[in-house]
Amino acid sequence: MKQKGKGKEVGVGITAKKEKDFSEWYTQVVQKAELADYTSVSGCIVFRPRSYAIWEKIRTWFDIELKKLGVKNAYFPLFIPKHLLEKEQEHIEGFTPEVAWVTQAGETKLNEWLAIRPTSETVMYDSYKKWINSYRDLPLKLNQWCNIVRWEFKNPIPFIRTREFLWQEGHTAFADKKDAEIEVMDIIKLYKRVYEELYAVPAFIGKKSQKEKFAGAEYTTSAETFLPNGKAVQAATSHFLGQNFSKTFEINYLDKKEQKKYVYQNSWGMSTRTLGIMIMMHGDNKGLVIPPNVASLHAMIVPIIFEKTKVKTINAAKRLHKQLQGEEYCVDIDLREGYSSGWKFNEWEMKGVPIRIEIGPKDIQNKQAVLVRRDTGEKIFVKLEQIKKKIPKLLKEIQQNLFDKAKKFIKENTKKASNWLEFTTAIREKKLIYGQWCGATKCEEEIKEKTGVKVLNIPFKYVKPKGKCVNCNNKASVMAYFAKSY
Amino acid sequence: MKQKGKGKEVGVGITAKKEKDFSEWYTQVVQKAELADYTSVSGCIVFRPRSYAIWEKIRTWFDIELKKLGVKNAYFPLFIPKHLLEKEQEHIEGFTPEVAWVTQAGETKLNEWLAIRPTSETVMYDSYKKWINSYRDLPLKLNQWCNIVRWEFKNPIPFIRTREFLWQEGHTAFADKKDAEIEVMDIIKLYKRVYEELYAVPAFIGKKSQKEKFAGAEYTTSAETFLPNGKAVQAATSHFLGQNFSKTFEINYLDKKEQKKYVYQNSWGMSTRTLGIMIMMHGDNKGLVIPPNVASLHAMIVPIIFEKTKVKTINAAKRLHKQLQGEEYCVDIDLREGYSSGWKFNEWEMKGVPIRIEIGPKDIQNKQAVLVRRDTGEKIFVKLEQIKKKIPKLLKEIQQNLFDKAKKFIKENTKKASNWLEFTTAIREKKLIYGQWCGATKCEEEIKEKTGVKVLNIPFKYVKPKGKCVNCNNKASVMAYFAKSY
Repeated sequence: MKQKGKGKEVGVGITAKKEKDFSEWYTQVVQKAELADYTSVSGCIVFRPRSYAIWEKIRTWFDIELKKLGVKNAYFPLFIPKHLLEKEQEHIEGFTPEVAWVTQAGETKLNEWLAIRPTSETVMYDSYKKWINSYRDLPLKLNQWCNIVRWEFKNPIPFIRTREFLWQEGHTAFADKKDAEIEVMDIIKLYKRVYEELYAVPAFIGKKSQKEKFAGAEYTTSAETFLPNGKAVQAATSHFLGQNFSKTFEINYLDKKEQKKYVYQNSWGMSTRTLGIMIMMHGDNKGLVIPPNVASLHAMIVPIIFEKTKVKTINAAKRLHKQLQGEEYCVDIDLREGYSSGWKFNEWEMKGVPIRIEIGPKDIQNKQAVLVRRDTGEKIFVKLEQIKKKIPKLLKEIQQNLFDKAKKFIKENTKKASNWLEFTTAIREKKLIYGQWCGATKCEEEIKEKTGVKVLNIPFKYVKPKGKCVNCNNKASVMAYFAKSY
Repeated sequence: MKQKGKGKEVGVGITAKKEKDFSEWYTQVVQKAELADYTSVSGCIVFRPRSYAIWEKIRTWFDIELKKLGVKNAYFPLFIPKHLLEKEQEHIEGFTPEVAWVTQAGETKLNEWLAIRPTSETVMYDSYKKWINSYRDLPLKLNQWCNIVRWEFKNPIPFIRTREFLWQEGHTAFADKKDAEIEVMDIIKLYKRVYEELYAVPAFIGKKSQKEKFAGAEYTTSAETFLPNGKAVQAATSHFLGQNFSKTFEINYLDKKEQKKYVYQNSWGMSTRTLGIMIMMHGDNKGLVIPPNVASLHAMIVPIIFEKTKVKTINAAKRLHKQLQGEEYCVDIDLREGYSSGWKFNEWEMKGVPIRIEIGPKDIQNKQAVLVRRDTGEKIFVKLEQIKKKIPKLLKEIQQNLFDKAKKFIKENTKKASNWLEFTTAIREKKLIYGQWCGATKCEEEIKEKTGVKVLNIPFKYVKPKGKCVNCNNKASVMAYFAKSY
């Protein structure tokens, strides 16, 4: 979008096609819509204001919901001493290959290496141990919004897979196992709502397989979705840790009868990966499409300027802009000189603004303006005095339409598989597979090796599978979602 | 505050005296009021919910003000490659001794070491270079809320000096020098407002000396204050960087006449150190005192329970609690069993809640409750139906009183010094010194070496000094603030 030197209308559009070269298309949208930029640290991006503002919307919404659940925000150290990170054996094995280590400060070599947090269980539970002594100290429910580092060696993809990302991580401790497990579900349902109500992205929630669960958890639940390029992606997980960590970290308390008990724990997180998912799901060949519920700017007024009627048009546009202030939605006006109206249309489309409001001399005559939907391109002629009321309705429609479209896409691209032929055919066709499975880790590993496909999750609602596992021909025990996945 | 095992009323109060052993007093307040806790990483603390909530209040307020100035939030990488950090020579010399270095990721030694950001000029300006090409791209005004690491080898003090802390850092670029310099002042005045209007801490703003300015800046302005232990502290600075960085980082653009120009830049930051300042300034021997404007909880209802009237009292307290919902302030009720009313009084005093509302059987008879001010201990009997309106007034009074008290303290402890004898006497008496100074760095270094005292800043409003420099006997050129400082 940068104008080099003069206000020349240099090529600013997206040149790649989403359906042809998804990866190039995505890279262009991310950069040209000014969502992110690459940096001189390989695998780390800048979250530019246009993406960061969306993340702030998510944070605000989620914080309100967390407050209702009695969760409070806190902040724990970035650094985790090596001995602490290594305390829970299963956990450390999951993270060791990706840990960034601080080994030196100033001119001094550190006695003990410090990990940059790949997740904060260990550093937090070291404190929980101190804070939890009596049943009166429970439940303890903390959340933090922070940066996380996982030194992936795979090809980085902005938002989807970067070495540093932002997330929230909740860490809770309970006296009762049941209460902990209820919260695991409450949270994964909240994540589903973030996807669906804010990002307009349908999510399917369920239990992870033993192989894919979080290292150190008893079980993991996840919210997943399926993208237009035929890949699934997970961006939120809610783990029941059981007493794995509490026994390792000695997080215990005296109950009412003065018996020593270990707490039950959960941890749950959702990351800026959700931003990438939103972009991939809704974007089109014109660029970004921002669902109204996460947009900071909901409509952009673009006056259509002819030299003869310039002043009149600009004044009318300004009056309209003024009239639309102070509402729950945000409307801006593009009065920049040196760009044609058409160029501006393209720019705001590329940047994903949900509604464009065009107003030209003819419209002024007719006391109207034209509202153009970003999602469908539909032009709607609206009398000036009705625009104020029309906008929120239209925003609601756009939000719903984006969700419905995505839902339809996923539905049409889900294929049931009851045997290996159906399974592999579906893989070739880049489908999301709903297939019958034995549930064994060995079988899962085999499938992964043969096809690159993962078990995404097993829906909470138990459906008894008929017949055999798609791969190993043992008796199927569950219905699971499979797909290639980020 | 932890109840070990049963609800026994174990010693929870602050045992050190602020006026006798300030440092021990501070440590106790920070820990017992559950603001922060130490961690297994030396020099890093946990920001517990009670302190983090205050920081969130500051963030919310400041973000609104930044928006008015056209500043947008973004997020840049935590890591800065060595070559980038070292690009601006003066800058790197200021930070090298305190940089934490990542040298290894997983099993792989990194080809280039990565600094954990001690401040983000270099990593941000590497992007600014790409984004700024035309006068149309200016001004560029970004801010980020993030964590910062400076590996101090001095004794850590929670909030005041920790190896990791939280802050916001604004980085702006302008075409005109004048616009940049106006912003430097706008921001330092905003910081003064954060101190004064939110934290109720008087701040004096001015220009830093050449010696104490930010490494890489043309000049630095600061907001400073003076604390009850006789130490000054700086927690916010606004720097005019001039073209130092833009020339090093090649941040240039074509102006309207297509001439290549370098931008003028500012950077400015305020950190969680402000939390420590608030605690030190207002706290007393009962514990923390939170100014109402940054409190999340404004009043705590404590029913005074006697066995005979227990149910009646609890019901009345609950009714009152319900009546005080949905207001702009937040009121909670302490119905915990197993603690006496007196114990609860002490606890909420220690935790700094601005108002305690006592209600007992006699009060019920008189259709009243007792409002107790945290700042003065004053008890105010208020009819039940008037409490709702009384609270916001009282909160305003408390906020003002805290500010006035602090202002009075600083005024009474500021001493004018026009010669070395007056200067050293004031130092011995632990005063804030307003003294005449020659302005030379050599002289400043001498003063520091002889007394440990720093030049804090030189007030913006120029006051012509009469006579000689307090130290070197050369002609005084400015009036400056001096004190021992964190």
